[in-house]
Amino acid sequence: MTTISLPVPDTTREVLDALLTRASSAALALADTTPAQRRGFLHTIADALDNAADELIPVARRETHLPEARLRGEMARTTFQLRLLGDEAGRAVEAIIDSADPHWPTGSRPDLRRLLVPLGPVLVFAAGNFPFAFSVAGGDTAAALAAGAPVVLKAHSGHPELSARTGEIVEAALREAGAPDGSFATVFGTDAGRDALQDQRISAGAFTGSPYAGRLLADLTASRPVPIPFYAEMGSVNPVFVTPAAAGARLDDIADGYVASSLIGAGQFCTKPGLVFVPEHTADDFLARAVPAVRATAPVPLLNRAISDGHARARRELAAHPGVSVVLDGADEGGVAGAGGHGGQVGADVAPSLLLTTSMALSADRDALTTECFGPTSLVVTYTSADELLDAARGFSGELTATVHGDEDEQLSRDLVGTVARFAGRVLWNQWPTGVAVSHAMQHGGPYPAATGQFTSVGTTSIRRFQRPVTLQNVPAALLPDELKEDNPLRLPRRVDGLDVPAPDH
Amino acid sequence: MTTISLPVPDTTREVLDALLTRASSAALALADTTPAQRRGFLHTIADALDNAADELIPVARRETHLPEARLRGEMARTTFQLRLLGDEAGRAVEAIIDSADPHWPTGSRPDLRRLLVPLGPVLVFAAGNFPFAFSVAGGDTAAALAAGAPVVLKAHSGHPELSARTGEIVEAALREAGAPDGSFATVFGTDAGRDALQDQRISAGAFTGSPYAGRLLADLTASRPVPIPFYAEMGSVNPVFVTPAAAGARLDDIADGYVASSLIGAGQFCTKPGLVFVPEHTADDFLARAVPAVRATAPVPLLNRAISDGHARARRELAAHPGVSVVLDGADEGGVAGAGGHGGQVGADVAPSLLLTTSMALSADRDALTTECFGPTSLVVTYTSADELLDAARGFSGELTATVHGDEDEQLSRDLVGTVARFAGRVLWNQWPTGVAVSHAMQHGGPYPAATGQFTSVGTTSIRRFQRPVTLQNVPAALLPDELKEDNPLRLPRRVDGLDVPAPDH
Repeated sequence: MTTISLPVPDTTREVLDALLTRASSAALALADTTPAQRRGFLHTIADALDNAADELIPVARRETHLPEARLRGEMARTTFQLRLLGDEAGRAVEAIIDSADPHWPTGSRPDLRRLLVPLGPVLVFAAGNFPFAFSVAGGDTAAALAAGAPVVLKAHSGHPELSARTGEIVEAALREAGAPDGSFATVFGTDAGRDALQDQRISAGAFTGSPYAGRLLADLTASRPVPIPFYAEMGSVNPVFVTPAAAGARLDDIADGYVASSLIGAGQFCTKPGLVFVPEHTADDFLARAVPAVRATAPVPLLNRAISDGHARARRELAAHPGVSVVLDGADEGGVAGAGGHGGQVGADVAPSLLLTTSMALSADRDALTTECFGPTSLVVTYTSADELLDAARGFSGELTATVHGDEDEQLSRDLVGTVARFAGRVLWNQWPTGVAVSHAMQHGGPYPAATGQFTSVGTTSIRRFQRPVTLQNVPAALLPDELKEDNPLRLPRRVDGLDVPAPDH
Repeated sequence: MTTISLPVPDTTREVLDALLTRASSAALALADTTPAQRRGFLHTIADALDNAADELIPVARRETHLPEARLRGEMARTTFQLRLLGDEAGRAVEAIIDSADPHWPTGSRPDLRRLLVPLGPVLVFAAGNFPFAFSVAGGDTAAALAAGAPVVLKAHSGHPELSARTGEIVEAALREAGAPDGSFATVFGTDAGRDALQDQRISAGAFTGSPYAGRLLADLTASRPVPIPFYAEMGSVNPVFVTPAAAGARLDDIADGYVASSLIGAGQFCTKPGLVFVPEHTADDFLARAVPAVRATAPVPLLNRAISDGHARARRELAAHPGVSVVLDGADEGGVAGAGGHGGQVGADVAPSLLLTTSMALSADRDALTTECFGPTSLVVTYTSADELLDAARGFSGELTATVHGDEDEQLSRDLVGTVARFAGRVLWNQWPTGVAVSHAMQHGGPYPAATGQFTSVGTTSIRRFQRPVTLQNVPAALLPDELKEDNPLRLPRRVDGLDVPAPDH
């Protein structure tokens, strides 16, 4: 096993240049691989990570302070994600065939065969809060490789040693599976990330992090001589709307569920519900149930000092807002001040905070009161009428998720589902937004500023971000890729002459 | 019939503001329409245009100088396009259902149902060269309405009266079909277009035109407080590669085909082949066949004075290049100087030009020699070896189309197909790129600078540009849209638990 010095040094310009050249070469070779080969690459990475779990998890614990059980679960999710996206590599080309048709209404139609091909090297900015699932071998990496695009992975500064070691394992697995040299590389440092994003050898970017950094990088990308797609997932407050009917039927369950969902992972999930709207007349009962549960949640260190400081600042600003009252002040419970305990990289344990406001106050100062507070702080919002709640809901513009706790016989509940679908990527009914299933129908993304683009960063449709369509016109059978051959040797689902033809083995 | 003064006045800020507010309201109402309703809107527009053809075509002739037969064909294509995209409105939601699964490998999976919903009001910048198919009621409009998005159409200055009248017909048809008020509006003037693109009520932009204007608008869009997708289709030189085998077998046919394709519509197609690579030893024979055909092509006026001037300038620059020789100088045949003959809006008739260079010269000054010359001028490029041709091919970066005239038994032909697929959106074999079939497998778009984004502006997959995914989690049956109901009342093709389920009536 390689010994890695801590901290991992930043990638130099010279090394970055060499890595980008290798990625360029790999892009051509990877584009020529078959879906079955790409599936093999991803499964081999997944197997290698599973085998290395006992080595990696202690490193992750040390660098992120996340508990072992969570990290083991996240590793299982990560390797499942790699395998699932690998299994999709063939289907993801979205093969469409229009046979030659002399009677096509706009004049004789030639033989047209369309597939999606990889864009080229993808620069992935890893997230800090999921050191496996949204990091080196996470969803963006899996999606890019499934598409046939090489990955240059900009490691998150919060877990450098884990990133370096995971990157080595990914590279070794790709080598073992016969992937082209240069299909994957890990780079370190803000400069390397920024330089790579502006390099013409990079064809797309993917990012998970703060709205500030996301927008900065999006602007850099847009200003390139050759602009490229940049997919940023930047978090949100994920509002929850509890209707009078739901509050009347199961207020305690909802309070318990809210506390659990908002505090899982110490509130460091991008889908953390940061706001819960409850009927004003049920607020005392809601708080009577929620406060002890929040208070009973043990203080924990946050991911790193930057997160701790950011959370403390956002919490203080919210708490000082004239429209907000502090129900439970985490600062008094666990303390956010004090020096870091782990080499200066982490703050002291942080206890959760619960704040209270009204929907009128929120609507009057939406920017201040709907800003994400990444960490264990959330805001209970009381409302006095259905109209007030719907007005508040209509004021949101871009959220990853929105949750309705309601009753389907209640008009307000039905109105809310329609309203929140206008601004959220995922709409939940009587469930909680944390826990994003890696699946076909998942959508993790939403209107700006929750995300840029019209795509998901989780689930099988995430592959589409790193592809572009190519149509082959009148190309003879011998020169067609297998995906488009008449006899469908890869047994893909395809659209042929307008009709959907399922995969032959189904 | 409304009398329209000429020129149509620019849309004022006040009128634009009112139109954008109407479009915003329409967006909410349109998002709630069923696919069958949207299909009805598009079919009604198509019927109305077919009925108005005898009124519109003379206006188009007067404003664009295009011949009647071409305009009739383009109208037929336009109404077919509206109907085809309307027929796709249901399928285009790409419904995906993952049933609740307690045994899902990453933990119990909730019921997840995903569909694509409309983005909101789309600003469409019409093109000048296809006054029907890429203008007011063209492909971008059809795609946006099929998605359920209102359209604000920025008319092209080259055919204002046609745009105004077509816009009236579209609005009346939508009213007749019961579409929400504000589903469509036409605006005039550069300021109106630029202001609308920066307005927060616009959710996406689509553009067909020059790389210069496209990039300017793309940069404006990227700098908005809330960035939005902007799809620009900006043309290209559409190189043609003739291999020695093809030249040996059918040089005359290829020369005839090239001349016809490069001069159809006086070279004013974005898919016009502007460069043809031929083996050096066949160049004399190629020119012996091509020159009389080019010379026999009657001079015609171009679309408008700006196009005439731009073509004359680009042709002069190419002709003056030290690596280029003039085989046939259109300026000497028909003359591009002189005052406009139609109210100053159009230049004199323009005769075609044919220029000659070598692939070595082209590779040495690629920027100068691969710039699009929009109009009836094209460049024959000789090459002396397979390696030289492949090198030249590898130098292209973003083209709408690339064409190979080859022989499938020839290694060079096979290598070329793979090489050109790296930079082109559509690869043609032994055919010609002009004539873009409106179909399912069509791709009209390509890597930058041919286009931005990873989408097509022609064909049924063009709808995807104006949609975003929403996933409904655990939402009860009564609150689901029909697209996602368990019994599939709309009879859509869907993906259910990973398996493709074709539309029930197929």
